[in-house]
Amino acid sequence: MTQFYGTGAALVTPFKVDKSVDYEALVRLVNFQIDNDIDYLVVMGTTGEPATLTNVEKQKVIKTVIETNNGQLPLVIGIGGNNTQAVINEIEETDLSAFDAILSVSPYYNKPTQEGIYQHFKAIAAISPKPIIIYNVPSRTGVSMTPKTILRLASDCSNIIGVKEASGDMDQAFMLLQNKPEGFLVLSGDDMVALPMVLMGGAGVITVIGQGIPGDFSKMIKLALEGKSKEASKLHFKIMNSIYYIFEEGNPAGIKALLKKRSICECTVRLPLVEASAELQEKISNFIDNY
Amino acid sequence: MTQFYGTGAALVTPFKVDKSVDYEALVRLVNFQIDNDIDYLVVMGTTGEPATLTNVEKQKVIKTVIETNNGQLPLVIGIGGNNTQAVINEIEETDLSAFDAILSVSPYYNKPTQEGIYQHFKAIAAISPKPIIIYNVPSRTGVSMTPKTILRLASDCSNIIGVKEASGDMDQAFMLLQNKPEGFLVLSGDDMVALPMVLMGGAGVITVIGQGIPGDFSKMIKLALEGKSKEASKLHFKIMNSIYYIFEEGNPAGIKALLKKRSICECTVRLPLVEASAELQEKISNFIDNY
Amino acid sequence: MTQFYGTGAALVTPFKVDKSVDYEALVRLVNFQIDNDIDYLVVMGTTGEPATLTNVEKQKVIKTVIETNNGQLPLVIGIGGNNTQAVINEIEETDLSAFDAILSVSPYYNKPTQEGIYQHFKAIAAISPKPIIIYNVPSRTGVSMTPKTILRLASDCSNIIGVKEASGDMDQAFMLLQNKPEGFLVLSGDDMVALPMVLMGGAGVITVIGQGIPGDFSKMIKLALEGKSKEASKLHFKIMNSIYYIFEEGNPAGIKALLKKRSICECTVRLPLVEASAELQEKISNFIDNY
Amino acid sequence: MTQFYGTGAALVTPFKVDKSVDYEALVRLVNFQIDNDIDYLVVMGTTGEPATLTNVEKQKVIKTVIETNNGQLPLVIGIGGNNTQAVINEIEETDLSAFDAILSVSPYYNKPTQEGIYQHFKAIAAISPKPIIIYNVPSRTGVSMTPKTILRLASDCSNIIGVKEASGDMDQAFMLLQNKPEGFLVLSGDDMVALPMVLMGGAGVITVIGQGIPGDFSKMIKLALEGKSKEASKLHFKIMNSIYYIFEEGNPAGIKALLKKRSICECTVRLPLVEASAELQEKISNFIDNY
Repeated sequence: MTQFYGTGAALVTPFKVDKSVDYEALVRLVNFQIDNDIDYLVVMGTTGEPATLTNVEKQKVIKTVIETNNGQLPLVIGIGGNNTQAVINEIEETDLSAFDAILSVSPYYNKPTQEGIYQHFKAIAAISPKPIIIYNVPSRTGVSMTPKTILRLASDCSNIIGVKEASGDMDQAFMLLQNKPEGFLVLSGDDMVALPMVLMGGAGVITVIGQGIPGDFSKMIKLALEGKSKEASKLHFKIMNSIYYIFEEGNPAGIKALLKKRSICECTVRLPLVEASAELQEKISNFIDNY
Repeated sequence: MTQFYGTGAALVTPFKVDKSVDYEALVRLVNFQIDNDIDYLVVMGTTGEPATLTNVEKQKVIKTVIETNNGQLPLVIGIGGNNTQAVINEIEETDLSAFDAILSVSPYYNKPTQEGIYQHFKAIAAISPKPIIIYNVPSRTGVSMTPKTILRLASDCSNIIGVKEASGDMDQAFMLLQNKPEGFLVLSGDDMVALPMVLMGGAGVITVIGQGIPGDFSKMIKLALEGKSKEASKLHFKIMNSIYYIFEEGNPAGIKALLKKRSICECTVRLPLVEASAELQEKISNFIDNY
Repeated sequence: MTQFYGTGAALVTPFKVDKSVDYEALVRLVNFQIDNDIDYLVVMGTTGEPATLTNVEKQKVIKTVIETNNGQLPLVIGIGGNNTQAVINEIEETDLSAFDAILSVSPYYNKPTQEGIYQHFKAIAAISPKPIIIYNVPSRTGVSMTPKTILRLASDCSNIIGVKEASGDMDQAFMLLQNKPEGFLVLSGDDMVALPMVLMGGAGVITVIGQGIPGDFSKMIKLALEGKSKEASKLHFKIMNSIYYIFEEGNPAGIKALLKKRSICECTVRLPLVEASAELQEKISNFIDNY
Repeated sequence: MTQFYGTGAALVTPFKVDKSVDYEALVRLVNFQIDNDIDYLVVMGTTGEPATLTNVEKQKVIKTVIETNNGQLPLVIGIGGNNTQAVINEIEETDLSAFDAILSVSPYYNKPTQEGIYQHFKAIAAISPKPIIIYNVPSRTGVSMTPKTILRLASDCSNIIGVKEASGDMDQAFMLLQNKPEGFLVLSGDDMVALPMVLMGGAGVITVIGQGIPGDFSKMIKLALEGKSKEASKLHFKIMNSIYYIFEEGNPAGIKALLKKRSICECTVRLPLVEASAELQEKISNFIDNY
């Protein structure tokens, strides 16, 4: 699964100021990634605000990305949830032919036990026609998948090919890297520690900031994969403040403000999210001007 | 809104061992509450596993509760989510005539800012034909509603009549109690601290354990509302261990194990939840035997 | 040990503006407690800044309190540390004849295991000629004494008569209250939750704010001990904001600012502590003016 | 201050089974470091249990290290505390001629504000005849020095030459690395993240485990300083489990168990610490046997 080494961009769903989906901006966004060395694209990730898209919109967003990409980059689709049967149904009902993998977040809100998480993903893996990357983000879901659970899934389900790890716990990443099966992908789901994770043996990152500063971010990760820590860390500190900014008022409000500055899309989001404050937009604007 | 003083039971949705909804058990459960001094019923709360019910099942569960209750107790329905427009649509499309209020959890997973949470509930309140109790449970949603946000909503939206507060932070409850508008309900959403919250001025509790031990739990809260802390705290310590047990492997796996012991329903839950372990069922069984 | 029911005041050590100890202010402070219904006095508690007093100063402070008190109130002396042998030596070398108990904080900084904490206090209890109240304040020490360790000490050492519990964890207090031996004192070490802890069965509080607002604070705790939660909680909400204020910039900088406003002492503290900011002094001053 | 690049070993103080200091073991320990590529030695660090040493013992330990080292490695001495004046006095009264720097922990237990921490170290720096490395370890002290405070000290006090950073917060390390003055040392105080911190630009580490596995640990850090992340991370994963083990029951109980296995000293510690359990000693023994 070397196609997921490097940098995957978790695409936003651009909205016009009237809150309708801006498909033209989405085309610009996808081309911006392709033209700037991003390695693969993730649609319907958390950053894409799928919670507030209708089914019709989701289909059209997916179609737009597939057509714009036109086979140039590997594609990952986010399908996850806190109802195991519903996730199974969605996978079975979705045309996955254009996708190389599914990114599936662990259940949020209903707080399963580790055994529940294991059974959830085991059931999903059993019916999935595509490889699965599981996603651990306890700050959103309310419960962390332990290394033991992740490694148990990695061992028992051959089509669970990796984990997007965003627990913010470097020790957890180390335990995964030390004990994972050969070829299992440990991907950072946290832009700030993406570089140290790759330097320590991670396969790459699924990034938010990377879609706004794709050239340098992608280069940083490539250098890290080659073991060139000095050159890579220089890029990290060049990019770093933008990472603070884009998460300061939540995701994707921040990255959309940065993409607006770059003339790719508006900074509009849908409720319950609200767009970045004028102060934050100003900080991001200054960052880009001085980049 | 004095009908929400006291103890509201957040009802489980009983499942048969084949995982289908057990409507007969639901009738037993509702009658058990009515016969044992519970003050009002909450359907489609988190404890009811609405995330894993189909729409048809939800309708039939709601209908069963309404018919069994037959006007004896006030009814609250849970309608919440992380897509503001979808919550609005659901409220508009639901027949709420039998209900006295809506319980609406703050958005989970997509982590809105405080301003986003405010705009979310303001938009919902604007269209709701029924009073709303907002629900703060950061351990599930990933973000806490601050006292400032809650008080801003209490002040600006006359049909937001209370908060189910489950942040686990006694200071937060104190700030709400000190600064809330007259009549605004501060309800505990945490069984373990329900008694101290009511003794300090809270209006009551929306409870999980209370549906399993309704008589004593309801009596404890009534004593607290009358300012009788000594009698109330004796009941707290009598009940206390069962609270640890029913949350030890997550909710509602634990309370369903207790309700099974009481011959009300099976302990079946749906994935991603898994039923209580044999060890936990044994502890709960012993607790009830020695109660 | 009913003499420790109610409110013990953890006295500050007043300093003049030149940072020398202000013994006249200390006399005023002690008399202020005696005249306003405080139940017992604690000298050399954390609030007394013993870490920055010389041995000579400590002796003179102790002597001043003993002489001013003149047998009117029970006295407790703080003797604790992270060197077990040194604590033993200090107890053996101190004239404890005027004291009714020792308050001994669990070891800070060197982070013993629970077994280490147990052995530490067991060794101290074995040589102490006076009853001991152990003090759990993990936000300062870096490690919490678990209920199991506290209860083990309560059971094994007859002269460990109570715990000052400041873990900020209501569940921990409940476990102690449920399982403690008859007569063992569970005292709140946290002013904000002192009232709910006493309403739930606690014996009282060792307080910081109480020395600044002794009449109402002491009355609140007495009402709680009598089970009068409604009257007590009114006083809680009257006092509450001052508790936030006095801990906003750390203890005892805040309480000294309040005592300055009350003309009892200067607000001087010794490095590494610094006195309360002008803004905080203003807030405290306004609070007292409007009390 | 390039002498502090690389690996500094925070030496334990060996005790005989009768709990007296074992000076012969200390000689073995120091020689083990010198013979295995450790870059400098730290005496009277937290790992050395200075809290439970008498002044006479401290002097003799220091003398033993100085004489054994005989000028071969740079030496750092730990002098810190929560009484600013006492730290000043100790620095002024100690013969520092053999030492190259002082390691000074931020105040523990009395929880100064950031301004208090700043004033504390500013006062110490003003009188210190030797360069100072400040030490941030909030899990022990109860309060973290913010990057702002550390950078303010770095900027205002020319003899504060570095920070031993053990907040466990990678973001904090990044902020320091990005904004520090030229030449200011950011040293890891946490063995587990020592490698990623150095790969990201840190100058090195003051280590516990490194004294037990000095050759490989020192080599790992040297490789990291040269930017050779792939070779370095191989050593990290070889060493990693021993780091979990030596902190599992607290420091220095764990490292002393490892040093016992290596025939350097007994695993004895002084109360309130207790020696590693038989189970942990077994795990450590197996680790070394299979290393």
